[in-house]
Amino acid sequence: MGDQPIQESLLEAERGPQTGMQLITSMLEKLLQADDHPRVVGIGIGSTGPTDPIQGLIVNPGTLPGWVNVPIVSWLEQRFQVPACLENDADAAALGEYWQGAGKGARRLYAITVGTGIGTACIIDGKVYRGAGGFHPEGGHLIVDPGGPACYCGGRGCWESLASGTAIAESMRRQLGKQPGADLPNAKAIAEAARQGHPLARRVIESAAESFALGVFTVLMTFFPELIVLSGGVMRSYDLFQPAIERALQDASVYLPVERVQIVQAQLGYYAGIYGAAYAIMKRNHDGLSA
Amino acid sequence: MGDQPIQESLLEAERGPQTGMQLITSMLEKLLQADDHPRVVGIGIGSTGPTDPIQGLIVNPGTLPGWVNVPIVSWLEQRFQVPACLENDADAAALGEYWQGAGKGARRLYAITVGTGIGTACIIDGKVYRGAGGFHPEGGHLIVDPGGPACYCGGRGCWESLASGTAIAESMRRQLGKQPGADLPNAKAIAEAARQGHPLARRVIESAAESFALGVFTVLMTFFPELIVLSGGVMRSYDLFQPAIERALQDASVYLPVERVQIVQAQLGYYAGIYGAAYAIMKRNHDGLSA
Repeated sequence: MGDQPIQESLLEAERGPQTGMQLITSMLEKLLQADDHPRVVGIGIGSTGPTDPIQGLIVNPGTLPGWVNVPIVSWLEQRFQVPACLENDADAAALGEYWQGAGKGARRLYAITVGTGIGTACIIDGKVYRGAGGFHPEGGHLIVDPGGPACYCGGRGCWESLASGTAIAESMRRQLGKQPGADLPNAKAIAEAARQGHPLARRVIESAAESFALGVFTVLMTFFPELIVLSGGVMRSYDLFQPAIERALQDASVYLPVERVQIVQAQLGYYAGIYGAAYAIMKRNHDGLSA
Repeated sequence: MGDQPIQESLLEAERGPQTGMQLITSMLEKLLQADDHPRVVGIGIGSTGPTDPIQGLIVNPGTLPGWVNVPIVSWLEQRFQVPACLENDADAAALGEYWQGAGKGARRLYAITVGTGIGTACIIDGKVYRGAGGFHPEGGHLIVDPGGPACYCGGRGCWESLASGTAIAESMRRQLGKQPGADLPNAKAIAEAARQGHPLARRVIESAAESFALGVFTVLMTFFPELIVLSGGVMRSYDLFQPAIERALQDASVYLPVERVQIVQAQLGYYAGIYGAAYAIMKRNHDGLSA
């Protein structure tokens, strides 16, 4: 997977939409000042959700403070006089993998990104599956174990609360009897310790892997996609998750022809969203937007 | 909801596909002998799954003994010289509700039938959502509580094993400490007893309702459909399930705009599948089959 070429701080999203939009605009202007810049046919945007792809709004008070109903699409369309479109970042990354990465040609692709949280996207025949009103479903919050921890999503024991990188670190914290916020190893360090045989780290990772596999089982039963594409920091430790995932496939094979399902790693890393946003605007220019 | 006009025994499915196909053929011939029979443009079939809608095969050794890879579509096409098509019965019923019932015009309809088991279907823009190879996903087996009972699907604590009519009767049996197979009240009788205040029956129904609502929460997070259509014998006791379902909607509203989601009762009862099978063949004649 590629490294992240642009530091997040560069956008300074926390300084609010006015500043953020000025930065985005000036970056685009810089690109267009080059004598040999390619013709711009449109601008595709991937953004952390929630987004409103139909209205072209970023609606994200949680991780982008102040970005509430920011009309980024109409803003950029007016400024640069080309069509623009907005996708949730999980959808953009999945579209990228579909177009240029691990998902080429898959008729039904289900993408699962496991990092700080769990993001999901479903691409059917090259088109993003959208929920009511065009909203992005939050598959990372499907229920895995109702005895699990409460999540900010309103549920208890959802996938993200039990199998994300944050959940892994939290689980270790609880096992160590530390207070919330204590300085403790992150999921990557815990995975490394588990790989080296640390018993507590192994228990924490194995438990997260079991929870992750339960979610995969539910994805198989509900979407039965022919391709599941895994990405995100936690999936760099796929070797530690693989045994549980294979048991889930084995369990599901009792009832479904799981030999038709492939589970693969994403190929484009950080660039997936960039490819996907480009694909989204090209496709939109070609087909029109489908809500 | 309508009553079932054709007794299941009439088809005598358990006598195998040869006898069954002869019965189906002779019923169709009888219809065509009437002087004023309408022009037949095609034959739509809904069948208990698993089915292979692309190849037109019934593949159901479980509930239709001997019906393994039965080419019902090519069989009927050759005999009657019109196009035929096959849908899983849950898909057919959901298509029927979409065309003529509770789901008219819904862009994303998720149907949940709760009877002996739990069947699901997803209709997107009037088309059945199909899984890999055209197979019907089995949403009734999404995981609700991994501490629950083992299911024939290969999972543990799946939706059907905790919230179907069979699960309700089983739960009562266990609570009463009876052996499997003992002659005990069915889900309908248990619901009636719960409504009259019987404490054990209330506990059993409330627990099933909680499990059912967890599955609804997962459907909201994964599909976020604008319409959920409920049907099946157990949903005739919807009043007993409603409080838990409303709590699930409330919980999900923390993260998703659930005011965009409607939950309604099916309108066509037994006829839903018949309407849906008819719609499927008309649509196929018009658009071609999409796998």
